[in-house]
Order: sequence, then structure tokens, then C-alpha cells
Amino acid sequence: MGNSFGKLFRISTFGESHGKGLGVIIDGCPAGLKIDEEYIRNEMQRRKPGQSKITTQRKEEDEFQILSGVFEGKSTGTPIGMVIMNTDQKSKDYGHIADKFRPSHADYTYQEKYGIRDYRGGGRSSARETSARVAAGAIAKLMLKHFGISIQAYVSQVGDLKLEKSYLDLDLDQTENNIIRCPDPVMAEKMIDFIDEIRKSRDTVGGVVSCVAKGVPPGLGEPVFDRLNAELGKAMLSINAVKGFEYGSGFEGVKMRGSEHNDIFYTEGDKVKTRTNYSGGIQGGISNGEDIYFKVAFKPVATIMIDQESVNEVGESVTVSGKGRHDPCVVPRAVPIVEAMGALVLADYLLISRANKL
Amino acid sequence: MGNSFGKLFRISTFGESHGKGLGVIIDGCPAGLKIDEEYIRNEMQRRKPGQSKITTQRKEEDEFQILSGVFEGKSTGTPIGMVIMNTDQKSKDYGHIADKFRPSHADYTYQEKYGIRDYRGGGRSSARETSARVAAGAIAKLMLKHFGISIQAYVSQVGDLKLEKSYLDLDLDQTENNIIRCPDPVMAEKMIDFIDEIRKSRDTVGGVVSCVAKGVPPGLGEPVFDRLNAELGKAMLSINAVKGFEYGSGFEGVKMRGSEHNDIFYTEGDKVKTRTNYSGGIQGGISNGEDIYFKVAFKPVATIMIDQESVNEVGESVTVSGKGRHDPCVVPRAVPIVEAMGALVLADYLLISRANKL
Amino acid sequence: MGNSFGKLFRISTFGESHGKGLGVIIDGCPAGLKIDEEYIRNEMQRRKPGQSKITTQRKEEDEFQILSGVFEGKSTGTPIGMVIMNTDQKSKDYGHIADKFRPSHADYTYQEKYGIRDYRGGGRSSARETSARVAAGAIAKLMLKHFGISIQAYVSQVGDLKLEKSYLDLDLDQTENNIIRCPDPVMAEKMIDFIDEIRKSRDTVGGVVSCVAKGVPPGLGEPVFDRLNAELGKAMLSINAVKGFEYGSGFEGVKMRGSEHNDIFYTEGDKVKTRTNYSGGIQGGISNGEDIYFKVAFKPVATIMIDQESVNEVGESVTVSGKGRHDPCVVPRAVPIVEAMGALVLADYLLISRANKL
Amino acid sequence: MGNSFGKLFRISTFGESHGKGLGVIIDGCPAGLKIDEEYIRNEMQRRKPGQSKITTQRKEEDEFQILSGVFEGKSTGTPIGMVIMNTDQKSKDYGHIADKFRPSHADYTYQEKYGIRDYRGGGRSSARETSARVAAGAIAKLMLKHFGISIQAYVSQVGDLKLEKSYLDLDLDQTENNIIRCPDPVMAEKMIDFIDEIRKSRDTVGGVVSCVAKGVPPGLGEPVFDRLNAELGKAMLSINAVKGFEYGSGFEGVKMRGSEHNDIFYTEGDKVKTRTNYSGGIQGGISNGEDIYFKVAFKPVATIMIDQESVNEVGESVTVSGKGRHDPCVVPRAVPIVEAMGALVLADYLLISRANKL
Repeated sequence: MGNSFGKLFRISTFGESHGKGLGVIIDGCPAGLKIDEEYIRNEMQRRKPGQSKITTQRKEEDEFQILSGVFEGKSTGTPIGMVIMNTDQKSKDYGHIADKFRPSHADYTYQEKYGIRDYRGGGRSSARETSARVAAGAIAKLMLKHFGISIQAYVSQVGDLKLEKSYLDLDLDQTENNIIRCPDPVMAEKMIDFIDEIRKSRDTVGGVVSCVAKGVPPGLGEPVFDRLNAELGKAMLSINAVKGFEYGSGFEGVKMRGSEHNDIFYTEGDKVKTRTNYSGGIQGGISNGEDIYFKVAFKPVATIMIDQESVNEVGESVTVSGKGRHDPCVVPRAVPIVEAMGALVLADYLLISRANKL
Repeated sequence: MGNSFGKLFRISTFGESHGKGLGVIIDGCPAGLKIDEEYIRNEMQRRKPGQSKITTQRKEEDEFQILSGVFEGKSTGTPIGMVIMNTDQKSKDYGHIADKFRPSHADYTYQEKYGIRDYRGGGRSSARETSARVAAGAIAKLMLKHFGISIQAYVSQVGDLKLEKSYLDLDLDQTENNIIRCPDPVMAEKMIDFIDEIRKSRDTVGGVVSCVAKGVPPGLGEPVFDRLNAELGKAMLSINAVKGFEYGSGFEGVKMRGSEHNDIFYTEGDKVKTRTNYSGGIQGGISNGEDIYFKVAFKPVATIMIDQESVNEVGESVTVSGKGRHDPCVVPRAVPIVEAMGALVLADYLLISRANKL
Repeated sequence: MGNSFGKLFRISTFGESHGKGLGVIIDGCPAGLKIDEEYIRNEMQRRKPGQSKITTQRKEEDEFQILSGVFEGKSTGTPIGMVIMNTDQKSKDYGHIADKFRPSHADYTYQEKYGIRDYRGGGRSSARETSARVAAGAIAKLMLKHFGISIQAYVSQVGDLKLEKSYLDLDLDQTENNIIRCPDPVMAEKMIDFIDEIRKSRDTVGGVVSCVAKGVPPGLGEPVFDRLNAELGKAMLSINAVKGFEYGSGFEGVKMRGSEHNDIFYTEGDKVKTRTNYSGGIQGGISNGEDIYFKVAFKPVATIMIDQESVNEVGESVTVSGKGRHDPCVVPRAVPIVEAMGALVLADYLLISRANKL
Repeated sequence: MGNSFGKLFRISTFGESHGKGLGVIIDGCPAGLKIDEEYIRNEMQRRKPGQSKITTQRKEEDEFQILSGVFEGKSTGTPIGMVIMNTDQKSKDYGHIADKFRPSHADYTYQEKYGIRDYRGGGRSSARETSARVAAGAIAKLMLKHFGISIQAYVSQVGDLKLEKSYLDLDLDQTENNIIRCPDPVMAEKMIDFIDEIRKSRDTVGGVVSCVAKGVPPGLGEPVFDRLNAELGKAMLSINAVKGFEYGSGFEGVKMRGSEHNDIFYTEGDKVKTRTNYSGGIQGGISNGEDIYFKVAFKPVATIMIDQESVNEVGESVTVSGKGRHDPCVVPRAVPIVEAMGALVLADYLLISRANKL
């Protein structure tokens, strides 16, 4: 279990890195939504490997096919089934790790849990799995767009290089203008150079993706357990390599006094607004109509090009050598994944919020 | 919806701060577990208000009653129903905020979402709701104990006062020896003084609770969406006032290189171990048998004793005056809540891990 | 697990026959619904024992208390917690069956499943459990009434005495006018006499409850698995002693030709109607706006006043003697239970149907 | 929503009759199960159209492909994704019903619910959807076989032709020996002749499928709502054209006295057995180790070759003419579908039963 996400706008995914294919079922997409395949394709492109010198050179075409749930260009309300066939599967590349546990990968835990695993490219634990999320997330984004909601992520930190500016002082439309997906061009340059250096040293580094959702109406979120922030947190922590999540003032907020941190209400026309937004657009687990923003921490990629000690399935000491084509830093490609998962949560909670009314 | 948590060890809660009572149903507690009511009572005491000079002086007795699911001292496998009646409900204290939106509380969002709210003491959004979680969590802890698993939380930061030591260098059994619940006595003293100062200034401050689970077997966690870390994150983010969650190396880990961050495997007897534990005991969303540790950020309490501007339900400017008996810092009382939610996740995932086997 | 029902209008129940109390949490009742406690009390009265000479003479007062989720007479959208304390628990009556498996009761299966059981009065498997369903169902009925939907059940068969008339030829408002709850006064009389005779012979007999829902709008039901008829079937089959469910033409319909059975469409104003209703108001798993009707088969009550052979927990032959106060036929008291479960399904599906729209 | 079934052994399906393809994800199949593709293919053959003169002559090859979750012939514990591409889609056949509501089909209700529908061949409401169930059910049956559990269905009634014998007096291994799938050769002959006659009259007729599961251990079922019989009932009622479900003594049992109907316990070695089995192997919602048996009523197929009155989407009177290739009676092809859904329930509940133990 564990391969479905969402309640009313619900996805279920399948697929391994080097199996025949991956896919997703979206159950609960409202009928009548225009399904723009070009838009979905573009989202897939943003995630796919081989985009630039700072991402893996592995080629995956990520061609998706919609098998059901769309008729004459529109969603019908029935499940949308999508498949992405695997093509460039250099399975032989993985023979050398068939029985070894790569450090800080999921090899050991899958073996312990299931007693069997498809070791090729990490199998189900491969980041390739996120392609299905991005495909589904693209449809969620189309639905959100219909309701006037946008979601945009960007890279705000790579290693020690941290963008201190608030998203309010950035032009998020610049994000796609550089290969690191940082909307500050100066910082972007620095980050790219830094990752390139890391890559040359055959090592990897972590980073942070920030994300902002605008136009979210008040009322989304289901306390006490299914708070909007709790579900966003779960969504983000379900992405490979994520180690932390914070929203609004986050970990920094703990240092503040209540008198500084409280967001004062005022009215603008007939709208209730807040003067600051340390709440990150969510109060008591429910959206308040302000921008929702949050940060997601990604650890350094576990696959490095440096030899490492480890053990194999029978407990013998072995050396794991870096091989294949991997990312020195995951964050540029994580940007569309964070958006996808965020969009899935918002789409789901938007539908929920419309149900429980007299 | 949103008031249930867990899949196989599942709780559903109800209750407002100033209604007749609160309660919880635990559905899925295995039969035959010795239900130690004294232990549950003790856990409730750790959460309850009025414990010390640095917590609210409000008195809530938090007497629980088990109505079902226990026979001759043991769980029967049927739902355990528990109620906690409200007694010290000074509802009149809340007349002054009946139609006002207190800054950074859930007053506005509940009003927007539901169109009606029990304003007394925050109603459902009150931290009083967590008493039901602690009651259920105590039973989860009893079950975990049966399987040799422990979970212990402690205060690791208040405002700027941050305990830099790893949990490995602390004696966690010291945690309950001081009123701030910090296992380092020197830091505990500083934190207590600091909170006392904050309290006198009629303000509030945030903090961080750290938590460690030991004895968790490898194999808990259900990728790709229901990773153990994702569910722990959701559990923590569902607690009032929480703004962030990180596990293992967390946000700091993003600065590291893969070559430093990777946890090298070795064998000890027939056990596979890791030399470091930046993974926080979870790899690929599945426990690996090492200690699980994580941190939870709590914002400063929103109720301050200082006048604040706000608006009321009809959009007029109003002043909200601090009144009543509130915590200057939530973290000492949050320690048992973090443990309870962590225990509920582990109990649930432990049961799940036993099902899907041939 | 297994003690929750519904998705958006969701109930969770707890409680044993002779424990301290029973209860239910309703999570998802829309805010702003007037909660008429008198109405709920009346529904509870219809289910409670001791109503007439043909039901058990056991006295249970079934006094419920609403602990949360209602403020100033209206639902607040937060969970409604209700408890029903047990009072007339003659636990000593059950000493004689403490280790015996009563034939066709759940004693053996609970013992096998859980390894422990509260044998007093059947514990969790007692029909007393349905009091919580009726309490929750009453609130569902209040919500349905708000939307112009009614649900009415009645006894249509006791033993061989079968009411052949369609519900269309009955005045369902007569149902509550007699103690058997059959809207045909002549048949009612026969059924009452028959049950009385059965009672005197210290035996029991089965029966059928029919149910009709009017005013259900088209569009309720979630194919392919969560068809409206499938969920109604599950709801009914979850009631104690139920052995069968059919809707529309049911088992009789299999004998018909398609050309007879098909319900021909026509229009009445701008409404699409069907000339016959063998579909029972549901086509393709979705309500079509016609009356929904179904039948529920109840087996003879397992507790008889006649000695029976059996075995005990250690496998020895024993005699089970009938003792205590039991129903000779369950159907008159099952009428409000069938309505309650039907109302819960319709309330849930009504909310769901409002969510998945653009 | 509504396109997933099961809790721990959970399937999600997608696909329309005349879209690109159908498919299913199985999430929760235990790792290490030998996946016998030949066996799955054989199950698919039993369901597919064009098998004999009494089923539709439509050709669908029902070639499935496993895309994930299986490695070197065994399940890996990760989701098993399967697709069945549509090939023989004579979409033009359906132009004549594009805007008409066929009587007793789901055309009207889908249109009302979703506002849009893929009218070709019934779209999602087509029985073609059940091919994905049979594929998944085949894997469930493989798992059950591993645990010594079998499930076998057969046709027990067509129109008025009713097999009065109990399954105990039949040789169920004869079922596949004739095209109607009735294990009594004499009755089989009669049924086949009768259906052939119905077919010639361009009409259709209903029938009943009976099903028996053997080897089910005691303890499966999750009262109070998720009783084993309730979930079996839901599973069966989720199949196209099903109008009723009964288990054990069913609707006939209502006529019996408690003293006849009660299943007397005795011991055989250290096993507790019952002398009769009116309970149908389930007591209190939990399996008791005896054979589980139940019946499923199927209405006459709605598509007839006779002209019928109806209305179209704008409410005009129209004539619907029978066209295409359809079944005169659904039951022979329903046999493997009933088995598949039954197997999915048993597989799921078997896994659940193993979790909630100390």
C-alpha cells in the first residue's frame, strides 16, 4: 500500500525505473476540464533528465499517453489513466550493484521490507517515479488555473548559497530563465557555478525549493488532523530526498515573540486581510486567503562518483563505485515536482471544501 | 472530515475547549494488550495545564474514562472509546472575543470555512483538543513498549536558546526532571528564566521539540506516498502551532556534500548498521533499524497579554485585549503531544508492516 | 478496524452491550444544520427494546448526550460526539455463557479472531451497538430533510407472511401505527399474532424490511466500485442478522425478459422520468431521480428459549439454555436501523456529489 | 472517485469501452508471490466475449501487459500496473446512440452526473470495465491459492430455470465443461437451449451466479461495518447488472425458525465445526472456518435487439434500435467476474487479519 495520494482528487501510481513502464490513475478530476496535452508535455519536460549541464545526462523521453477519462479533449469525470513507457533502460549498468546496498539509498530498506527488489536503477525508489506525479500534477494545475489558483516553485538554496530575499521581492516569472530555476539571476549564476564545481569533484550537494500558491480561497483545510499545512507537509516529505518542510515563518519563527509574529487583521473593501503573513496563508490548518508559501529541504544526492564502503546482501564488505549518469544536485529538477505535489493537495482540498456545505 | 488519523491503528477525535467534553475512539488496537490506566493518567498529567510557573495557570483536570474496548484490564480488539469531560469551563471569559478575530488564531478561518463557530476558548481549534491525542497516544506507547520500541521527546530550543548537542550526548531520562523538559540541566535553567521573562513582558515565544524513537525494526513505511517520514511529518504538522518538521540531517543537511552525508553500511554480527545516521533512521521512506529522530518547530503562542488591533465579523476595526490564562511558550506541554503523535504513527505502521507478507 | 462508515459524512462507533457506554462520532456533518434533539430522541425510542409485547422486555433507556460539534442548537462543522451510557446491565445474566459458544452467535468467531471477548450480552456483537447508528442516522435524516429527501422503512415479511403489495400501493405513514411496523393493517395483525405464537413456543423467526427513499436527486453514486446500490448493500449487510439485500427488481428480476424489465424513459416538463422502475432508482450505480427502494432479509434471532447443544472454549460438549429477555423477531426494531443506515449512505453520497464539479 | 476497491490488497481501475485502453493498479500484493501469467491469461479468456454461441460475438482480445511490480517472475511488493489496450473498437457502431438515453443503461445517469460522457459502447459503464477486475482478481486468486483458499462460482439460475441442489451436491469441477458454466450437465443443457431461444427472440434474460469459497480460515471480517459479508455484498453489487446479494440461508432463511436455522457447534479433533451451515461460513461478520457461499442476482441485459421508445439529451422522444453484438444473458461471462471480486475481498481481509495481532 502507500501508492495513492489524495481523497477526492486522488492519484495512484505505479512503475519502476527500469520496468516496462510507469503510470498514474487520477480518480476524481471533475468532468468538463479542458485537458491541454501540450501543457502536460511541457511540465514533463521541466522534470526530465538531460536538460542541462547541471543535471544528469541520462536521456528519458517521458512520453506519456492518456488511455482513458478524456473524451473530445475534455475530462469525463471517470478515471484518467496515463502511462509512460520506459525506453532508455540501460539495465546492464546496474549489474554491479545487484546485491550491494548503496549508502543512503533505499536498497537495504526495500530488501528488508520486501525480501526481493528490482535493483535496476533503484526500481520503485528511483526518482523516475516522480514523472507520474508530474503528469498528474499538470492536470491538477489545469484545474487550479480554472479556479484562478497558481502555484510556483523555485530554488532558494544550494549548499550554503541561500537566497535571503522573500518571494515578494522576486520576479517568479524569471524562474524558468536559467537552468538552476532560481528567479534571482545573480544568485542563479553563483548556484550554477557551484553545482558545476561539485559535479567536477564527483560529489553532490543538497538544496532548498521554495513554493508559493496564490489565489487560494479561504476555507481549505480539514482540522484537526488533515490541516492544509499537514497535507502539504506530507506531500513534500513523500518526494525522494526530502528531509524537511516548513511553511510561513517556519523554523526561524520560533525565535520571534508573539507580538511580532502575530499577523494583524484589517479589511480591504469587504475582504479580511493580514498586514504580515508569518502564518504562510494558513491559520488553524485552514487557508486564510493570503499567499501560501513553504520551503522543502533536499539532501545531497546519494549517488556519488566516488568509491564508498558498504555491505552486500549476505553481509560482506564491498566497495560501491559510482557509475552511470546522475544529478550532482536534485533541486532544479525538483521544482516541477514540488509544484505538482502542491497542486495535487490544493486541488483535492478545493474539492473537499465544496462538499461539506448545506 | 479530517478528524481521524491512521490506517490500521486509527484514532478519531471530537470535542471543543468549552463544550461538554472531548474524546477519542481507537479502532485497531490489537486484542490482549494490558491497558495500564495509571500510565495513561500520567501521560495526561504531562500535557495538562497548570503544571508549573511557565505554563498556563488554567486548571483542567483531564480525567478520562474508558467506556469500551477493554475487558478485565485488557484490550479486546474492539474500539476503545474514551471521554474527557470538560469541567473548568470559564465560558464567560470569552464573551469579549465572541465576534472578534484574534490575530494568528483560527477564529477567522473557522468562520470563513463553516459560517459558524464555537468561539469559547477557540472551540475545536483549542490546544485542549490535544488531550484526546495524548490519551490515545498513551495506548499506542503501551503497544510499542510491548514490541520493545520507545519514543522520547524533549525541548531543544526556546527562542534563540538552542541546544546544539545531539541527542546522543544527552541523557533523555533527565527530561522530566525540570519544568521546561530539556534534558540538559544548564540549558533548562536558561530556558526557564527566559520564558519567565517573556511571561512577565506579557508576550510569548516559540521553540523546538526534538524526538527520538529507539528499537524501531527495519521495514516500517509505505512508499511512495506513505513514507514513514511523510506520515511523521503530517502527524507533527497536525499539532497546533507547528510550523516545521525535519528529520535526520534536516534543513542543515542541504549544506553537506553527498560524500559526507551518506551513511556508510557495515555489519555487526548479522545486523546491518550505519556508521553515521544523517538519514534519521529512514531511507527511501522505510525505517532501517537505526534511531529515528526528528525536530518540530512551534511558533510563539498567538494569545498575548498585550492589546492588538484586529477586525470583527462584520469587518469593523476592534482591539483584542489579552485575557485569561495562557502559556508564554507552548513547548514544555508539547513534549508529550509530540510523543503521542509519533507513537500513533509508529503503532500504525508497525501493524501495516505485518500484513503484507506471504 | 472496521468501525467507521462513510467518506465525507463519516461515522465511527464504539461500545459494548454491557460496558460503560456506547457512542458515535459524526465527522463531516455540514455546519449550520439545526440539530433537533427531540427528533433524535424519538428515533432512538423506535429502536429501543421493551416497546411492545413482541419485542424483548429488556429495558434500555438509550439516553444520549451530545458532547461536541453543536453550538447554540446548530452543527458547527466539527465532529459531533455522542455517548449513550449503559445502565440496565444485568451482567450476571451472562455468567452461564461466559465460556460457551452460543449457536449462530458471534461468540466463536470473536474468540477465534481476538483471543479474548467481552461475553456479556454479546459484547460488541450485540444489537445494542446499533443504538449509535440510529443516533447518527437521525442527524443524517435531518440533513436529508433539509435537502427534501425522505427515507422510510417498513416490515414486509415475517416468516412466510409476505406483503405482496408494492410500496406504491401502501400508505407508508401507517407504518408507525402498529407494533410490527407494517403499513398494511390487516397483514400487520397477522404478523403480530404470528410472532406472538412464535414467542410462546420459545422460538424465533426471520423477516424482511423494505425501504423507500424519495426525493433523491439524480447523480448520487460513484462507479465503478462505490455505486450507490453497492454502498447501500454494504450498509444493510453491516447490520446484525442481515442475510440478503436486493434493490429494484432484485432476485425476482432475473426471471424477466429485458424487454419487460427495461425502464422506458419519457419526459415530464423538463424532467426525464421512467415509466416503470425496475431499476429501483439506480442505473449504472447512480441515482436517476426515481424512488430508490430495496429489501433487507433478517435471519431468525439466534437466541432462543430452547436448550441447544454446543461446545465451550476448550472444546467440550455443553448445553446452552435460553435465558434473559430477547426478541422473538428482530424486524420491528430493525425498521429504524435500516432507515438510519440508508440515511447515512444518502447523506454521504449527497455531499460527495457536490464536490467533483468544476 | 469510487474506482478503487480494498484496503490492504487494493485495486484501482481505469478505462472505457472504446478508449485507448483499460488497466488496473494492484497496491498491496505481498512480495514474493509467483505471478503466473498463463493463469491470468486463462482467467481473462473465461470473461472475454465471443466464447460461444450464447455470448456476444464481439471480439475483444483482452491481451494484458504487466508494466511493473513483478521482477523475475515474482511480485516485488510494489504496485503491479497492468494495461489492456482496446483494439476492436467499432466506435462507428455507436453514432446512432450518441445523444440518446438507452433504457436501463447508464447513459442518462452519467449525463446527469458528469454533464459529458463517452457514449461509445457505454464508455466507463460498459461491462468491458470488468476485464481489469478479472486481471487483478487472478492475482488475488494466486495469492489465495498460496494460503490454501479456493473460490469457485457457477450459474445456478437462468430465468425461471433454477438449480435447486446445494453446492454440496454438485461437482464444481464440472462448471467449465459447458458454455453456460453450470455444474449440473442436465440443467446446463436446458439453460443453454433457453438462452439460445431468448437470443433468437432478440430479447435477453437474467440469472443467478452462486459462489463458494473453501479453506477460508476463521477470523476474517472487521465488524461492525466492515463485516466480511458486507464487503462481499458490496463487491458483488459493484458489478454491472447485479440487483441482489445473499449469503448462507439468504432470503429463504427468513422463513425459518431460530431452532432450525441455528448452526449447532461440535468439535472434530481440535477444530470447532458446525453441523449445518445456514450462516454461510460467516457469523457476526467474521468467517468461522466453514465454507462461505453466496448468490448474486443479475438482471436481464439492457441491450435488446427490439426497438424501444426513449428520449434524447434535449428531451425529445426517440426510438432506440438494438444494434451491435451483445449477450442475451450475462451470467456465463459473469462467473469469472464474481470469482474475481470474491477473491479480491478475501485476499484483502486475509491481509488485514494478520495485522491486528500482538
